[in-house]
Amino acid sequence: MTHILGPRAARKLQTRQALLDAALALTEDQTLSSVSLREVSRAAGIVPAGFYRHFPDMESLGVALVEQSLGGLRTAIRAVRSGLTESDEIARHSVRVLAREVRAHREQFRFIARERYGGMSRVRQAIREQLRLFSDELAADLLGGDAAAAPVLGRWDAEDVRMLTDLMVDHIMSTAAALLDAPAARPAMERQIRDSASRQLRLIIVGARHWTGIKHDASPIPTTGRKDALTPEE
Amino acid sequence: MTHILGPRAARKLQTRQALLDAALALTEDQTLSSVSLREVSRAAGIVPAGFYRHFPDMESLGVALVEQSLGGLRTAIRAVRSGLTESDEIARHSVRVLAREVRAHREQFRFIARERYGGMSRVRQAIREQLRLFSDELAADLLGGDAAAAPVLGRWDAEDVRMLTDLMVDHIMSTAAALLDAPAARPAMERQIRDSASRQLRLIIVGARHWTGIKHDASPIPTTGRKDALTPEE
Repeated sequence: MTHILGPRAARKLQTRQALLDAALALTEDQTLSSVSLREVSRAAGIVPAGFYRHFPDMESLGVALVEQSLGGLRTAIRAVRSGLTESDEIARHSVRVLAREVRAHREQFRFIARERYGGMSRVRQAIREQLRLFSDELAADLLGGDAAAAPVLGRWDAEDVRMLTDLMVDHIMSTAAALLDAPAARPAMERQIRDSASRQLRLIIVGARHWTGIKHDASPIPTTGRKDALTPEE
Repeated sequence: MTHILGPRAARKLQTRQALLDAALALTEDQTLSSVSLREVSRAAGIVPAGFYRHFPDMESLGVALVEQSLGGLRTAIRAVRSGLTESDEIARHSVRVLAREVRAHREQFRFIARERYGGMSRVRQAIREQLRLFSDELAADLLGGDAAAAPVLGRWDAEDVRMLTDLMVDHIMSTAAALLDAPAARPAMERQIRDSASRQLRLIIVGARHWTGIKHDASPIPTTGRKDALTPEE
């Protein structure tokens, strides 16, 4: 990057990144709203007044941090794209990829889990928007021509597809948060979280394969026919 | 309570409650870890040194606040107990109860949503323990003699029952957090969240009714028989 930007612009980018890294490190035990601009600047090795050359305020730094922190989550979400097969192995594989990403990007996942419902509304909103984009991408993938899920989801209305991918993204976020809270000293706890999360993901997929859209309770007469007529063969 | 306790003990309890209320009010836009003991004391009308007559530290106050804040959530979780019927109306009813509880106990739900992944580990742990108790209660209810779900869940192994009730509790928490973030000025947004949450709850229930336990991919031969043989009639 130094080649293209020249040394001065490159230094500026480095300082910006140092501020982002410092904020991420400082939010290990607290939320961003508890961290002061002064603390972040000091940790990045600049004077507080220098902060404003990079961000107008702490919320803007938070929004930038959201954008930088979601790479691992995106990879984890992509792992669910294998389609909607009821296979236990595929569910386990998806959760394994998630656990690996959480380990590799621990600080970033922790930041997102905390700030998702944390104090700064612009940061919260940035996370919500990014998760919505992930949900859209997942929907596009599951509906894609070569996806195993396409024949099932192709018949669904748009709200149903969205509720399913939102549920999957929420499930991934909850699982990531549970994994973050498992003490490193207790590997059995992590295994248990992963096992439970795989079962849950598969249960969601089983639900999706047997989903028949909204049913109203207009008729009190017991159903006699099969309800899962839309379920395709595997 | 004054009758039993005497005026002095009653005053002490009142001050304790004033501290809890002040902390809840102060965490409307920030997490508890950003609030100082001094601020809470001032807002409760006592000197900071007086705080220690009620709580040894801010974390202990946080744990007490968790215990006081979960009433609405418990009511919302109870609404899912109607059993595991695939009825759209029942799912909608559960989510309606949740939305009502969130409106009635907004500050408490916000506190729990924030602190669940927030900065103070003892507070986080208290929330985790309470949610686990709720999940246990829900499991006991769904397995209870008169529950519609009992014939289905009675055949499941304990880990499967737990993963289902954990998924339901997580879903309730995510929905509550989404409802809290919907601006009061946009009722259509709340309706959309509720609609999506009811569909998700019903999809989870459909998944549960068609759940057949862990399936391994040992055999690559396509399944020919029905997989949902365990699904009872409605």
